[in-house]
Amino acid sequence: MKHGGDLLTYQHYYPEELIDFSSNINPLGLPVGLKEKLFNSFENLKVYPDIKYRKLKKAIGAYLGCSEGNVLVGNGAVEIINNFIIGAKRVVIMTPSFSEYENRAIVHGKPVIKIPYIQDEYNFLVNLESLDNFLKKDDILILGNPNNPTGLRIEQEMLEEVYDLVVRRKAYLLLDEAFYEFCPPDYDSIDLFKDYDYEKVGIIRAATKFFSLPGIRLGYACSSIEKSEMIQKIELPWSVNAMADAAGQFIFENSDFIKESRSYIEKEREYLLDKLMDIEGIRPYKSHTNYILIKLIAWDGDYIFDYFLRRGILLRTCSSFLELADDYIRIAIKDRENNQRLIKVFEELVSLN
Amino acid sequence: MKHGGDLLTYQHYYPEELIDFSSNINPLGLPVGLKEKLFNSFENLKVYPDIKYRKLKKAIGAYLGCSEGNVLVGNGAVEIINNFIIGAKRVVIMTPSFSEYENRAIVHGKPVIKIPYIQDEYNFLVNLESLDNFLKKDDILILGNPNNPTGLRIEQEMLEEVYDLVVRRKAYLLLDEAFYEFCPPDYDSIDLFKDYDYEKVGIIRAATKFFSLPGIRLGYACSSIEKSEMIQKIELPWSVNAMADAAGQFIFENSDFIKESRSYIEKEREYLLDKLMDIEGIRPYKSHTNYILIKLIAWDGDYIFDYFLRRGILLRTCSSFLELADDYIRIAIKDRENNQRLIKVFEELVSLN
Repeated sequence: MKHGGDLLTYQHYYPEELIDFSSNINPLGLPVGLKEKLFNSFENLKVYPDIKYRKLKKAIGAYLGCSEGNVLVGNGAVEIINNFIIGAKRVVIMTPSFSEYENRAIVHGKPVIKIPYIQDEYNFLVNLESLDNFLKKDDILILGNPNNPTGLRIEQEMLEEVYDLVVRRKAYLLLDEAFYEFCPPDYDSIDLFKDYDYEKVGIIRAATKFFSLPGIRLGYACSSIEKSEMIQKIELPWSVNAMADAAGQFIFENSDFIKESRSYIEKEREYLLDKLMDIEGIRPYKSHTNYILIKLIAWDGDYIFDYFLRRGILLRTCSSFLELADDYIRIAIKDRENNQRLIKVFEELVSLN
Repeated sequence: MKHGGDLLTYQHYYPEELIDFSSNINPLGLPVGLKEKLFNSFENLKVYPDIKYRKLKKAIGAYLGCSEGNVLVGNGAVEIINNFIIGAKRVVIMTPSFSEYENRAIVHGKPVIKIPYIQDEYNFLVNLESLDNFLKKDDILILGNPNNPTGLRIEQEMLEEVYDLVVRRKAYLLLDEAFYEFCPPDYDSIDLFKDYDYEKVGIIRAATKFFSLPGIRLGYACSSIEKSEMIQKIELPWSVNAMADAAGQFIFENSDFIKESRSYIEKEREYLLDKLMDIEGIRPYKSHTNYILIKLIAWDGDYIFDYFLRRGILLRTCSSFLELADDYIRIAIKDRENNQRLIKVFEELVSLN
């Protein structure tokens, strides 16, 4: 499976509706009031979206805490990642990570330097020493923060060291923070790098995961005014559609949805991690976000994928993630009922052994 | 003005709502029933669109008259143009034409060969001799059919000669047919090149203009199965959002809307061309589609743009179109009431001279 959320491919293996643990969407669902907002914006489809997305960028700037001039928008985070890659000489990534970092580099003919995360029993950590060895001028270093599929935020001190290295090398740091809002409040990169005017850093976020809007395709980013202007020159025109434009002018206002989702995920993450630790034959990794990477000890990924699929649960195998063999799976954190169902299937599986 | 439809930039010059003659959208507006269809698809936003767009491609294939395997979809026609360009060595265009052909070539570092159309008093025609001189192996030749902003379809015989040349040179022909449905029925390129299995040709169309959906961002194309598979490898994932996906599974079914729009445009095109021919100091070019290019004899483009803007009409200046100086404007064909209003302002302008 190349990406999560591909229900259509697997639906026929199970008579009822599949429970999708393969894509990491907020279990609280769509923001309240959005349906009405979009319905009222229907006539917008008749005209081109504002090619400069002025109102949208204003709303995003206010939400992120940066100025409109720093804001970039795109057809999902992946289009913004793509546009940053176009301007780089080489692409440096740490593995395992989201497969599109490498895919987009290949599409644009950029050499890819892959450095493995340092792996211990429960964590995947940034390898600063290797970065120091490999990072060169005009490289773009892309780091998930938290990283997908491994799930941990980069510690603030480490992030500052990475940024210092990037500046010294005249490289560029792109932080993919598509899962930022799910994480426990630590530092905010947009705040952290404000004093540097985001000189050598771009920070990407998205409506996709936290606002449960993978279908709407709305990613956004904060970078220096200079960099934002450069990226705007290479962007496809009107890449954010009118519905995504309208949604982005609405969803950030609902602070209750944001608070509630954060605390819901925190509770369910603890619950699931706790339960998973008790399952024999698997090893869950620590997570700050709304998914958990699991190393399979007693089975391989294909077997587990199939076993759960026949019981109505779609898991994410991890072979598409660079450098992960097929003995890993990733699960999304869902609502309590579904999380319990997942645990039950694991327990049943163990009892068969 | 870089692109049409940028109402937000100009709205403050006029107290009431501007009439937008700058973007070429079907004056009959949105397809009936679409609002309900999209409203019923709202929950789709919670999940990723089918990454393979299977149902959408099936609907498009049925509408275009080709197989699903031939179909490509994208975030507007411009994304598909962009993806075809990525695979080419050089980009050959005829000028004047849509500025994004050159823009996207520059973004991807491709050399651009520009050949002027042969211009006579009322027409811009393909220059086969120059093409013969310049076209090389692995070039992509992009031709608007009808071309924007000039407005004429390529005659079938000429198109076949161009295709023969492209095949002999081992180049590739990309036809941008975003305005196809507005034109009088002549040949259908998708039918014409079916016997060749679209070996060296891609044909792009879009929901943007004819289905009045510039805000939804839905372009589609027909090319050989081999080429479609190549392009799919470099596409951004999920580039068509869930609302565009749903719309594309709906709009082609309404054959009444299609027939009505065609005959409406034909009538208004005749009316407008007729009236414009009588205005002194301008020279309208022949058109097969829903816009008319006008050469200004007695004024320059900026003066005319400003003059109409102050009277509530947004025109399209043509300086963004390659090789057109600022003494051209392009107007969209709108409904009778607005077309009359445009003519009235022209007549008033002439009376001042």
